[in-house]
Amino acid sequence: MSTPHPAADPAAGAAVKATDRAHVFHSWSAQGLIDPLAVAGAEGSWFWDYDGNRYLDFSSQLVNTNIGHQHPKVVAAIQEQAARLCTIAPGFAVDVRSEAARLIAERTPGDLDKIFFTNGGAEAVENAVRMARLHTGRPKVLSAYRSYHGATAAAINLTGDPRRWPSDTASAGVVHFWAPFLYRSPFHSDGEQQECERALRHLEDTIVFEGPGTIAAIVLETIPGTAGIMVPPPGYLPGVREICDRHGIVFVLDEVMAGFGRTGRWFAADHFGVVPDLLTFAKGVNSGYVPLGGVAISAEIAATFDERPYPGGLTYSGHPLACASAVATINAMAEEGIVENAARIGEQVLGPGLRELAERHPSVGEVRGLGAFWAVELVRDRATREPLVPYAAAGEAMTAFTAACKQNGLWPFVNMNRTHVVPPCTITEEEAKEGLAALDAALTVADGFAV
Amino acid sequence: MSTPHPAADPAAGAAVKATDRAHVFHSWSAQGLIDPLAVAGAEGSWFWDYDGNRYLDFSSQLVNTNIGHQHPKVVAAIQEQAARLCTIAPGFAVDVRSEAARLIAERTPGDLDKIFFTNGGAEAVENAVRMARLHTGRPKVLSAYRSYHGATAAAINLTGDPRRWPSDTASAGVVHFWAPFLYRSPFHSDGEQQECERALRHLEDTIVFEGPGTIAAIVLETIPGTAGIMVPPPGYLPGVREICDRHGIVFVLDEVMAGFGRTGRWFAADHFGVVPDLLTFAKGVNSGYVPLGGVAISAEIAATFDERPYPGGLTYSGHPLACASAVATINAMAEEGIVENAARIGEQVLGPGLRELAERHPSVGEVRGLGAFWAVELVRDRATREPLVPYAAAGEAMTAFTAACKQNGLWPFVNMNRTHVVPPCTITEEEAKEGLAALDAALTVADGFAV
Repeated sequence: MSTPHPAADPAAGAAVKATDRAHVFHSWSAQGLIDPLAVAGAEGSWFWDYDGNRYLDFSSQLVNTNIGHQHPKVVAAIQEQAARLCTIAPGFAVDVRSEAARLIAERTPGDLDKIFFTNGGAEAVENAVRMARLHTGRPKVLSAYRSYHGATAAAINLTGDPRRWPSDTASAGVVHFWAPFLYRSPFHSDGEQQECERALRHLEDTIVFEGPGTIAAIVLETIPGTAGIMVPPPGYLPGVREICDRHGIVFVLDEVMAGFGRTGRWFAADHFGVVPDLLTFAKGVNSGYVPLGGVAISAEIAATFDERPYPGGLTYSGHPLACASAVATINAMAEEGIVENAARIGEQVLGPGLRELAERHPSVGEVRGLGAFWAVELVRDRATREPLVPYAAAGEAMTAFTAACKQNGLWPFVNMNRTHVVPPCTITEEEAKEGLAALDAALTVADGFAV
Repeated sequence: MSTPHPAADPAAGAAVKATDRAHVFHSWSAQGLIDPLAVAGAEGSWFWDYDGNRYLDFSSQLVNTNIGHQHPKVVAAIQEQAARLCTIAPGFAVDVRSEAARLIAERTPGDLDKIFFTNGGAEAVENAVRMARLHTGRPKVLSAYRSYHGATAAAINLTGDPRRWPSDTASAGVVHFWAPFLYRSPFHSDGEQQECERALRHLEDTIVFEGPGTIAAIVLETIPGTAGIMVPPPGYLPGVREICDRHGIVFVLDEVMAGFGRTGRWFAADHFGVVPDLLTFAKGVNSGYVPLGGVAISAEIAATFDERPYPGGLTYSGHPLACASAVATINAMAEEGIVENAARIGEQVLGPGLRELAERHPSVGEVRGLGAFWAVELVRDRATREPLVPYAAAGEAMTAFTAACKQNGLWPFVNMNRTHVVPPCTITEEEAKEGLAALDAALTVADGFAV
């Protein structure tokens, strides 16, 4: 793949940034302490600024551009749909809405064949929780520490990372439990099989003590994303499925980040042979070219709302422009083998390459993942596994590491003491190797903070 | 304006609908009882199906297509932006994001000059509530009965219509109060001035008994939309502003439906000379061509998050495609005098025309509104003001009225015992009169259910 060579225009960049600083209020930020990079353009695995710098995008923005930037088929589909019909209310039937739902239902596991569209992942989770509560008539929802489910009220309460704290309402009917994570085992396990058994026992105990008849749903990221890409042991999700069945609890898998090719399968659930009752998606469904998310719904839960109105909705549910981009994205991913590319790059390039870096860099405690979905856990001490920065903290070590990545032309995804390697699923072997080389150099900086 | 003459293609429409029924789960509906119309296309104030029927859109879909369908300047802007940069993460500065924020800040009242972008209105309200709670350090939020604020957890709890009931969590820290509505006065008032005074006294009393120091925000639609387009008395919102100032309460005006020209001004707040601390918007900002909403933030509240991180965000905050469509929409509205057109049509055509219908039709209890934002309150009995159907209910009378509108080529906005006249702000005098004539015929059907 050719890499773009941007033309510099620093004055234009300065103007964009000055207006941004005057009027744009940014997500998750202290507004007076940020210095946003002005982006001039993007293509494939790359984006560039106004100063002639280009970056290899190992973050896929916020892990959403699974198909890379500016895929020509998706761009064309948006342009064509814009000329035909930009918007229409959710109550109508529309060709692209029907076709997007059909293509998604064709790929979701089991009988998850009805699609409720939202604008993004948070609203998908909000609606999945609403469906589960109304389907069961029960109030509580269980979710995991080390998770992220979105920032609207119900979604942020489900979340198990520090972003929940300032908006937490303990009354929201959410109970957090611990999911398996062998490297920092909450269960003092000595191996994957034991971690799986103990995690299931912990979940079962929590349910028994909360009252099975009070629990509407268990919400889990199939593979937790921002929280650290902890691939669960093979038996864990089937075990959760069995627990849900036994207690009449709705099983919700959140595939907002892990879905649509990210793990080298259409859905991460496919790796584990598990079928949830509700599956939430966003991001990869159309690579975020137009805001879109949704819930795939089992036949049984859909039937709950056959004669009883479903009490949820939004003005842009099934937005035509968003649905058209999803149709083009899914078709392009299928035609071009993009899901298979993610699997192959994970097995042949990223996995081996990251394991090799782990051997050489004392700051790397563990690498884990699959497909285009990898975490590198940075530690001060490999023996104690002490994180390079404490939980919920920033710190000089990670700041220096991040700066080194960018100086080497790599845009990393960084969260606490981890960097995630989450490039577009379209990344080439050559690009992946170029990124690993930049990471290698940056890890040398991190090594300086490790014992 | 020429009206489109659609070509019929019933087989294509049947296929669209069959796939919809197999795979699309619709907002606010009993899935087994709906029969969605398959829409083939739309232009200006019109849309059409696959059977050769066209409809004059007196609903602006869900009161969002303020600029009409398929405005060529907005379509072109989406196409051009799609070719340049569909998506980029919220952390970057981008030309169209900067420019959209600048154009919005230029129009919002007072010092509401920082813009936090969301995907729609519900998320805007969620974030306004979060900002208010963190800014004040207080837990409770007051909102009005007869209101709609969205369907995510915090937004639906604020809502004061029956859509709240199935998702209500009484623990959400929301207290509902009564806002002015002279036609069905909660305060037994005999005139607008008395209604205003009594409504302010009721609000003040509620605050005193809830504890002023516990209340973060009062959230009001400037002019309540779906709940009935109750234009408040001139002194009410300034009175609420004074109450908020006295108690250190954040004043949030929700202009998701009323904003961006709908009332014949850029914002409904402009009619009342009132400046809130936070203003939420969506819908008209880009007519829903791409999902977009946001919060305009006062200097004082923005400063709260200068050094303290704002703990909220979303993957598609400030989405480039959405921002490009907002820039084009706002510029087109300004260039073409679309806000002024809404004001003129309201004063010269819709207002006089609806009042004339009210005189002739015994089923019309009241008409009220301004700009392109009118409600027709249908009653069984003008003397008792008994609604044509009870609160929170459907009924044969409204079903027959709605069917008559559609038979006459008019697509109405219907809620409980009301029909709203909320066409695009671009509607021509000729179209408005054509719609009023269709409404006239349909009201004759409603009259059959009135005494």
